[in-house]
Amino acid sequence: MRLLASLLLAGLLSSAAPAHAQNLASAPKTDSLALRKIYDEALLRGQSYENLRYLCKKVGPRLSGSPQAAQAVAWGKLTMEKANCFDKVYLQECQVPHWVRGSKEKGQIIGNKGRSVPAAVCALGGSVGTGGRLRAGVVEVKSLAELKALPDAAVKGKFIFFNRPFNDALIEPGAAYGGAGDQRRSGPAEAGRRGAVGALVRSLTSARDNNPHTGATAYGDTPTKVPGAALSTMAADELSQLLKADPSLQFELEMSCETLPDVVSYNVVGEVRGTKYPDQIITVGGHLDSWDLAEGAHDDGTGVVQSIEAVRLLKAAGLRPERTVRAVLFMNEENGTRGGQKYAELAQQNHETHLAAIESDGGGFTPRGFTAETAPALLKKVATWGPILAPYHANSLTPGHAGTDIEPLVSAVHPTALFGYDGDSQRYFDLHHSALDTFEQVNRRELELGGASMAALIYLLGKYGL
Amino acid sequence: MRLLASLLLAGLLSSAAPAHAQNLASAPKTDSLALRKIYDEALLRGQSYENLRYLCKKVGPRLSGSPQAAQAVAWGKLTMEKANCFDKVYLQECQVPHWVRGSKEKGQIIGNKGRSVPAAVCALGGSVGTGGRLRAGVVEVKSLAELKALPDAAVKGKFIFFNRPFNDALIEPGAAYGGAGDQRRSGPAEAGRRGAVGALVRSLTSARDNNPHTGATAYGDTPTKVPGAALSTMAADELSQLLKADPSLQFELEMSCETLPDVVSYNVVGEVRGTKYPDQIITVGGHLDSWDLAEGAHDDGTGVVQSIEAVRLLKAAGLRPERTVRAVLFMNEENGTRGGQKYAELAQQNHETHLAAIESDGGGFTPRGFTAETAPALLKKVATWGPILAPYHANSLTPGHAGTDIEPLVSAVHPTALFGYDGDSQRYFDLHHSALDTFEQVNRRELELGGASMAALIYLLGKYGL
Repeated sequence: MRLLASLLLAGLLSSAAPAHAQNLASAPKTDSLALRKIYDEALLRGQSYENLRYLCKKVGPRLSGSPQAAQAVAWGKLTMEKANCFDKVYLQECQVPHWVRGSKEKGQIIGNKGRSVPAAVCALGGSVGTGGRLRAGVVEVKSLAELKALPDAAVKGKFIFFNRPFNDALIEPGAAYGGAGDQRRSGPAEAGRRGAVGALVRSLTSARDNNPHTGATAYGDTPTKVPGAALSTMAADELSQLLKADPSLQFELEMSCETLPDVVSYNVVGEVRGTKYPDQIITVGGHLDSWDLAEGAHDDGTGVVQSIEAVRLLKAAGLRPERTVRAVLFMNEENGTRGGQKYAELAQQNHETHLAAIESDGGGFTPRGFTAETAPALLKKVATWGPILAPYHANSLTPGHAGTDIEPLVSAVHPTALFGYDGDSQRYFDLHHSALDTFEQVNRRELELGGASMAALIYLLGKYGL
Repeated sequence: MRLLASLLLAGLLSSAAPAHAQNLASAPKTDSLALRKIYDEALLRGQSYENLRYLCKKVGPRLSGSPQAAQAVAWGKLTMEKANCFDKVYLQECQVPHWVRGSKEKGQIIGNKGRSVPAAVCALGGSVGTGGRLRAGVVEVKSLAELKALPDAAVKGKFIFFNRPFNDALIEPGAAYGGAGDQRRSGPAEAGRRGAVGALVRSLTSARDNNPHTGATAYGDTPTKVPGAALSTMAADELSQLLKADPSLQFELEMSCETLPDVVSYNVVGEVRGTKYPDQIITVGGHLDSWDLAEGAHDDGTGVVQSIEAVRLLKAAGLRPERTVRAVLFMNEENGTRGGQKYAELAQQNHETHLAAIESDGGGFTPRGFTAETAPALLKKVATWGPILAPYHANSLTPGHAGTDIEPLVSAVHPTALFGYDGDSQRYFDLHHSALDTFEQVNRRELELGGASMAALIYLLGKYGL
């Protein structure tokens, strides 16, 4: 591309907008100017990117209960204090699970002539270990229902291989993730319930490569816990192909993962008291813990640094909020949500009034806008802010899941609305929960624009309420 | 992020939409279904990504006049033929410039004690060489106007160092590129005109790293051509800082680039004859040539493979166009636009009627929609298609530059409208014209969604005209 000059006529094609939202003219000019200040600060002097670099490169992977998770808590508190934008910074203690991957993690496909083919695997979070090498035949299914329909004889003593791929035709990768995710969450539990020796789960990604993607699996009240491993999509395709040629092949899995006793950890909270309605709280957060295979950059280092930055941007732009704003770095989203539960529990104990909560946990990608969980009438009110968010491409509003950490607030203190930061997620599941989730995958401008968009929503919520 | 299920309520916040565009209900269901077929084909069986892999990895950098550019022509023709969706595939001969970088390219900052610091440089495309080592003092300016205001004595015999950075506050990186680009295009010519010995130009990117970004510079009718080099942004910052401490420092540049005689090359054209209005032509294209520092992945391998794919998608979806569609792989966009000029010249000679032309030359990023150059009334017509493009996030319509290769059509045959594929460009200038523009920087889904969006626009233009 050579030089181009581009004019903007935002939203000319976005013709599905309801008539009530057509109030561009009435959007106060002061709000437009406030947003411009926020985005200027983010793009010219933003701190998210360098904070993320530190969190990824100096702290690194920080699975709940790990020494790095403890380091991340200390880093989070210090970073909030240094941001110099909070009235107080404090910790909220919570007990978290302590699962460790261990040193052994190996998979191989054993053909009928004893020929073995290595298969890229990783233990699913929370899985039991194999207790040495575990070798068994393999039964491929595409769903939990398909497993259910199999006779016991076909299942007993086997690995159940859950191999339903992402539905790539879905435009939103999150929907494809949702559609395939029961295999990882419940596959090992169901396999154990039926007498299988283990579960092999196709990685939850549409990328075709050799990186296995971990993520939590839950045994619930399953009496027999059997190991669950993710296969890279290439390994899954290979296993499926080899099985067609030789249904009697075996798989050998060795994993030394285990669950240790719970340990003490913390949410990190920074608070700015509202000038006018201090009792109305707006929470903004991401989760401080990450999986252990990489640096937890997009999941969810970006949400962490954006949540701190959103509050800093407001101060730097001279926009002291009328309502109380809390940035929360939640602990243990990935395998327990204990931090989110603790935050909600304390909110309930303290009889707090929560106006809104915003979570960024979908990666630090270029802004589209926000997902929202709230009453339709309030959604319409938020939609009227669209025109002043449109120049920043942050004006999409999609009813839908807002965030796992803020969800417990719903039953605890009935917040008026939950929002999720909604960036373009086409690249997300290529790296999500895998060794690829590193700092290098994050673009500075996309990250800073996201934090600014969150600050903009907080500014509007803080000024106008809901 | 854990599992989430997301509903879509497209455009609820996009409240700047004009009332006339509110025809969601009237958008024929057949069109929605047609688009769904196009996107399904692209996401489930798309060929853009594998075609791009070949072009990047097997052909590689393909600057006009190079052997690889000739290979790219052969590849383009074969790929179009194998796509099996064109009625005819042919070449259009054109003469192209043949600039070569040569083997020597080195820059260093020489302090007053003879201490030298290496500086990452690359020759600007079209620059003359230095004829051995060229050492001189350095004068830093932030603009052509600042150079103009300097007395001759301050300029003569010096390197002019153009160091105006991107304006990072601009939301559209293309606007920042436009705002800084005159330094690269005209800096060396102006430096030579004023008696300087060369020009050093800060790379046109907001990334802060050590990759110099090349790009065309033009001498015009300047009598004295002096060498022009791009400095990486880190080298530019270092040079600027060292100059403050020691204004008498020198810079040494050695570049063996040169311009050889023009050579014969080609546009590659694939055509599908319209069923109802075969004389009305819709062109879709990207440029086949690239800079020589990397693989020309986003610039503009993505536009090339998307243009072929857009036509293939229509056929695979069973949507034979009513108007004639031509996919054109333009040669020599980067340093001459000779291919684009030739295409327009032949269109004029053949008295062709051009309804619309679409170019993809802004990178293969996630769709936003299109830029457009057309009459406002027609823009409103195109805007009515917004609702059926909205589910694919391809419904933005922005008046603005559409594409360098299709621009010559305007004066030649007065096409009704020009469109540019408009993907999210936040990452683009990090890699544009640098060694970073490789296949690995392209995301499969983003690329395929872009090609599908282009096919969708062609389908609508082909059916409804303008």
